[in-house]
Amino acid sequence: MQRIYTIIVPMANVFGDKWSFTSFGESHGAAIGGVLDGVPAGLHISMDLIREELERRAGKGTKGARWAVPKYQGVSPRALREPDEVEWLSGVIESDQVTKDQGLSDQGPSDQVPSDQVTKDQGLTTLGTPIAFLIRNKDARPEDYEFLKHSYRTGHADQTYEQKYGIRDWRGGGRASARETAGRVVAGCIAKQALRLKGITIHAALIRVGAETDPAQFAETIAAYQRDGDSIGGIIECRIKGLQAGVGEPIFNKLQAELAFAVMSINACKGFEYGTGFEGVTQPGSAINHISGGIAGGIADGTDITFRCVFKPTPSTPKALAKGQRGPGGQYQSTKVGRHDACVAVRAVPVVEAMAALALIQLL
Amino acid sequence: MQRIYTIIVPMANVFGDKWSFTSFGESHGAAIGGVLDGVPAGLHISMDLIREELERRAGKGTKGARWAVPKYQGVSPRALREPDEVEWLSGVIESDQVTKDQGLSDQGPSDQVPSDQVTKDQGLTTLGTPIAFLIRNKDARPEDYEFLKHSYRTGHADQTYEQKYGIRDWRGGGRASARETAGRVVAGCIAKQALRLKGITIHAALIRVGAETDPAQFAETIAAYQRDGDSIGGIIECRIKGLQAGVGEPIFNKLQAELAFAVMSINACKGFEYGTGFEGVTQPGSAINHISGGIAGGIADGTDITFRCVFKPTPSTPKALAKGQRGPGGQYQSTKVGRHDACVAVRAVPVVEAMAALALIQLL
Amino acid sequence: MQRIYTIIVPMANVFGDKWSFTSFGESHGAAIGGVLDGVPAGLHISMDLIREELERRAGKGTKGARWAVPKYQGVSPRALREPDEVEWLSGVIESDQVTKDQGLSDQGPSDQVPSDQVTKDQGLTTLGTPIAFLIRNKDARPEDYEFLKHSYRTGHADQTYEQKYGIRDWRGGGRASARETAGRVVAGCIAKQALRLKGITIHAALIRVGAETDPAQFAETIAAYQRDGDSIGGIIECRIKGLQAGVGEPIFNKLQAELAFAVMSINACKGFEYGTGFEGVTQPGSAINHISGGIAGGIADGTDITFRCVFKPTPSTPKALAKGQRGPGGQYQSTKVGRHDACVAVRAVPVVEAMAALALIQLL
Amino acid sequence: MQRIYTIIVPMANVFGDKWSFTSFGESHGAAIGGVLDGVPAGLHISMDLIREELERRAGKGTKGARWAVPKYQGVSPRALREPDEVEWLSGVIESDQVTKDQGLSDQGPSDQVPSDQVTKDQGLTTLGTPIAFLIRNKDARPEDYEFLKHSYRTGHADQTYEQKYGIRDWRGGGRASARETAGRVVAGCIAKQALRLKGITIHAALIRVGAETDPAQFAETIAAYQRDGDSIGGIIECRIKGLQAGVGEPIFNKLQAELAFAVMSINACKGFEYGTGFEGVTQPGSAINHISGGIAGGIADGTDITFRCVFKPTPSTPKALAKGQRGPGGQYQSTKVGRHDACVAVRAVPVVEAMAALALIQLL
Repeated sequence: MQRIYTIIVPMANVFGDKWSFTSFGESHGAAIGGVLDGVPAGLHISMDLIREELERRAGKGTKGARWAVPKYQGVSPRALREPDEVEWLSGVIESDQVTKDQGLSDQGPSDQVPSDQVTKDQGLTTLGTPIAFLIRNKDARPEDYEFLKHSYRTGHADQTYEQKYGIRDWRGGGRASARETAGRVVAGCIAKQALRLKGITIHAALIRVGAETDPAQFAETIAAYQRDGDSIGGIIECRIKGLQAGVGEPIFNKLQAELAFAVMSINACKGFEYGTGFEGVTQPGSAINHISGGIAGGIADGTDITFRCVFKPTPSTPKALAKGQRGPGGQYQSTKVGRHDACVAVRAVPVVEAMAALALIQLL
Repeated sequence: MQRIYTIIVPMANVFGDKWSFTSFGESHGAAIGGVLDGVPAGLHISMDLIREELERRAGKGTKGARWAVPKYQGVSPRALREPDEVEWLSGVIESDQVTKDQGLSDQGPSDQVPSDQVTKDQGLTTLGTPIAFLIRNKDARPEDYEFLKHSYRTGHADQTYEQKYGIRDWRGGGRASARETAGRVVAGCIAKQALRLKGITIHAALIRVGAETDPAQFAETIAAYQRDGDSIGGIIECRIKGLQAGVGEPIFNKLQAELAFAVMSINACKGFEYGTGFEGVTQPGSAINHISGGIAGGIADGTDITFRCVFKPTPSTPKALAKGQRGPGGQYQSTKVGRHDACVAVRAVPVVEAMAALALIQLL
Repeated sequence: MQRIYTIIVPMANVFGDKWSFTSFGESHGAAIGGVLDGVPAGLHISMDLIREELERRAGKGTKGARWAVPKYQGVSPRALREPDEVEWLSGVIESDQVTKDQGLSDQGPSDQVPSDQVTKDQGLTTLGTPIAFLIRNKDARPEDYEFLKHSYRTGHADQTYEQKYGIRDWRGGGRASARETAGRVVAGCIAKQALRLKGITIHAALIRVGAETDPAQFAETIAAYQRDGDSIGGIIECRIKGLQAGVGEPIFNKLQAELAFAVMSINACKGFEYGTGFEGVTQPGSAINHISGGIAGGIADGTDITFRCVFKPTPSTPKALAKGQRGPGGQYQSTKVGRHDACVAVRAVPVVEAMAALALIQLL
Repeated sequence: MQRIYTIIVPMANVFGDKWSFTSFGESHGAAIGGVLDGVPAGLHISMDLIREELERRAGKGTKGARWAVPKYQGVSPRALREPDEVEWLSGVIESDQVTKDQGLSDQGPSDQVPSDQVTKDQGLTTLGTPIAFLIRNKDARPEDYEFLKHSYRTGHADQTYEQKYGIRDWRGGGRASARETAGRVVAGCIAKQALRLKGITIHAALIRVGAETDPAQFAETIAAYQRDGDSIGGIIECRIKGLQAGVGEPIFNKLQAELAFAVMSINACKGFEYGTGFEGVTQPGSAINHISGGIAGGIADGTDITFRCVFKPTPSTPKALAKGQRGPGGQYQSTKVGRHDACVAVRAVPVVEAMAALALIQLL
């Protein structure tokens, strides 16, 4: 007998309603990817910037990063050698084929465009139609996850997925895998490039790892937890510069609410704050009255916006397993471990930027 | 200087908000396709039915069709020989891999499932995650459309696209090509399979070609226009059976409004009517009072729903071009013709069913 | 035991997502009304125009109408004497209180504003916040509808409402009453005033009553049906002038699909067509190729848009009841009749304009 | 010349898409209120519970509150004496008029309904149509805010509103006033009553005021800041019990993201966290692995959900003004003060519950 499970939630894989991003793909299926609809025609997309963002997400770090990912952080050498390659299905043409005849000049980026975008890379130009892309799942080794067929991992979504859908793709976490965020990074990078043309930049950085607040010490701190078979959380700070006053809505769609929604949708994120945040609770109004965090009444006030978010430690670690922990739902713990990042906050940095960019681009 | 065109309309390529279907792809780009989000887990999808629908759209006709497409109707032999092949990217697994362990029984379809679905074809089972698929554009011959680089075709969307986006993919109509409807047919076929499990069926048929109302004469009527280098319109009637009373909303989202929105979104469709329709205008209330068309106050009343829609003739025909017509916007007419269907209403039949299915599935 | 009925459809009373109009109110409850969200600040709303539209809807006709409503058309003298009065709850201030200090000049409408809006009426100015308004239900005589407590009227939504909600406000049709359209007319009139500032005008007119196409004969034709205790349908044509090329979306949200959705949501509307419409089916492509109806590929082409819609005859007429008709759902027919308009298409004219305006304003 | 301001954001005053709540009203206009669409027919709404929630929001405290609002907290005696009265415009009928004939039994609440709802109060029953309500603005004294006509208050939304809309209703903060939250509390209370029928309860409480964590000391702590002409922030903890596993979506619409979006839309809220939150950053994975906060992978796991949110101190205090502070946007500070709550977190408690309820009800 065919059983159809009845919990359906509409558009659960779509983010935004102007530049709407539809995400698809299981971590060990054919591909992950997405469709970005609403992007205006004529936007040049730098492939170099997309590649760079995907490498940041893969843990390689970039020139601009305050802090490089240490080798011992659990990223496999293979992953570093063969970065994700994006296959573009629609919505773009090679920029060098766009001529005056087709309505776009060939003068190249103007002076107003930040110099780091004027690189002569192989780029694409948007057509105004939906941009569909995919990233093939190479190196899918479902046999590595065979043990999950009959077990759940504490702190992972294994059990809740099965409770929800009745059926679960146990290979590598399926849709719950962090791999899904690669699509977010691609879409977010396109949004960031559009924002930059309006003078808006978004930069996130890790500002805390466990008790450590000195970036120079982050690599060593994480390495220590890694050696110990354990993991640790981190706090990311994100700064938005150049956003004009007036963006955001006064009632339900306050700018801070939109940002919180976007950022809290990232796996392992446990909290969001801006302006005076949680620590401000101990300060009297007369002392912190003037700190707006860039937003007043839900609306950008024209100053920099700063928000922070916290990421919990990776749940499945050798040490946790040795302790034989059970989760609050009573699920049993697998005795094996997949790949293990001692501090997922490191690779979350570009994802935070991507989600902030996708949230902002809806409002402009 | 980079120019970004400013008309952005959100979610213009997304249909529906429960089973939301995002369509992508240009006719002569890499691929067309779509993402269907909101489909519950555990639905078996017959690949045979999908193939059959794509063949109907390609003009091959099917067992159930009242009327076969004549050879001379302008469909290239190659198109008929190599039907569109769907590549599934996510959201599904092979049905024969779904075992009890994974939450689904392997008993096969129940008695309640209509017998025509119990075929032992190679099928897929949904995971509850977004279903992404693509159809590669084989045989894209952009050179056939080179002449369009600097001209617009009367009755086509060439000029309005350029007005809107400032940039246009002139190869084969780009996004405006009827090829885009292949994605609708795939998504609609999944919706139809889900509807059938609820006892709801949708059948459309051509009921008129020009002045001809006898289906037995349609092929000859179309052939005559084809020989004359001309084209002709048609009326399609669609019947929905098995829809329970109560579906549809009383105010803005009346069932007839949802169906009209869905069907009027098909290229070349110029009108929609249900129940007594336009012809009913001459009848007094006392004579036609009892005809509901299956809907009262915007809500299904439990009887069959019948609607009709009209498709205009193909605009670019040899005869039209010989007359050197100009469109109302003053655009100039190309002197060449691409492929030419004498009556597009023929191939629109499965598209009408698909859009009706996608409209209904949102409401259930 | 408390029973909660389970069919919930989200946002069923909201039209549009930019200027979103939320409609509320039962015909014999405290009030009907609406909230219009998304209207920009600083728009002057003429109260005279709103009043005029409500009078058209109430059947009084206006200067600009091609055809006046005859006295004998069944509109009660009281309704004509005491037009609906709009109570404004939020989102507006009296225009004469808007000073330079508050960011708006007091120079009055510019030359670009059509002269018929420069009337020195008591107007309101929008604040950019949601505009809420209500119209009290005066003269609610639920006892007139007592007979409906235990019966359904053929051709009305009485039965489908009860099937859907399990509970029904039987007084005067409740939410299904045409009275609900008064709110649409108010919202639509605000939209029309905003459209006029952009040079866009919308004019609808009755072009056919039964077999009659001469407007000079409409009053007499309707009167004849009224005397006969019967009713008759009509066709309304609506013309949109001044819409710039580029409005509308190429795939699902085609301009014609949006207009069809809006217009088909009006009670008693049974069909929508534009351009060559249904009658075009008999003409070859070479003859009607050049008729765009103002839209190509779903996008406005800059020429006038003309669409038509058909309204069925009023269902509950003395003649119909005498025949003891039953509807297709088998519902039994009430033996009494409420107020009776021999041709509802007359009063639908301003509602068609209002819905077209609300549809267009979402796209600009 | 008429100027229309161009920043339009769609549906900015609508929360949710299943039970969609449209909020309207300026604090010193005619009324504030809302429309709740999507509520199923047949739900009994206790007026006593609505009154109780509005009193909590007005600062009166309730039986169940852990902590009573002190007299000296700046709530005017008049406000306490005359609570907000809700006028119901549509969507409901008096429960005692609902009879078996109309599809609802009169047996009263069942055993499954918590006993505190079985009170024999004057209640209303929903019709399934939009529920519109308003609360008149009594005691609007715009002259108290005359000083704001030409000045902005630091930490308030005065300046950003004017930047956004170009026009500002300076009387009492207009739409930015906390008064707007009364509508949220009414809508949220209806949602809470529906949730309770499903066994889901939501309870929020103040857990911290400044450095103080002992509820017994909160009143005195606040009173001290009040005496000092200053203000202080607070942290609210909210617990959701009874939510079944499976609610929430795995990707963008994670349950925590929906809750964060809802709660961060409350004025003065500066942060949201759940589970291990920000403090968890210092703990290794092996220590806090088992704490889910009730959500795994964005989906409820069937255990209690606990989240916390922080509210900043009231900005406009005598002490702040004496210091002549300027905000980060350079706005100048008014020299007068309106009404002053030393700790707005107190009155935010029922608003947090309301927003959590409105967020949850969309997902069920």
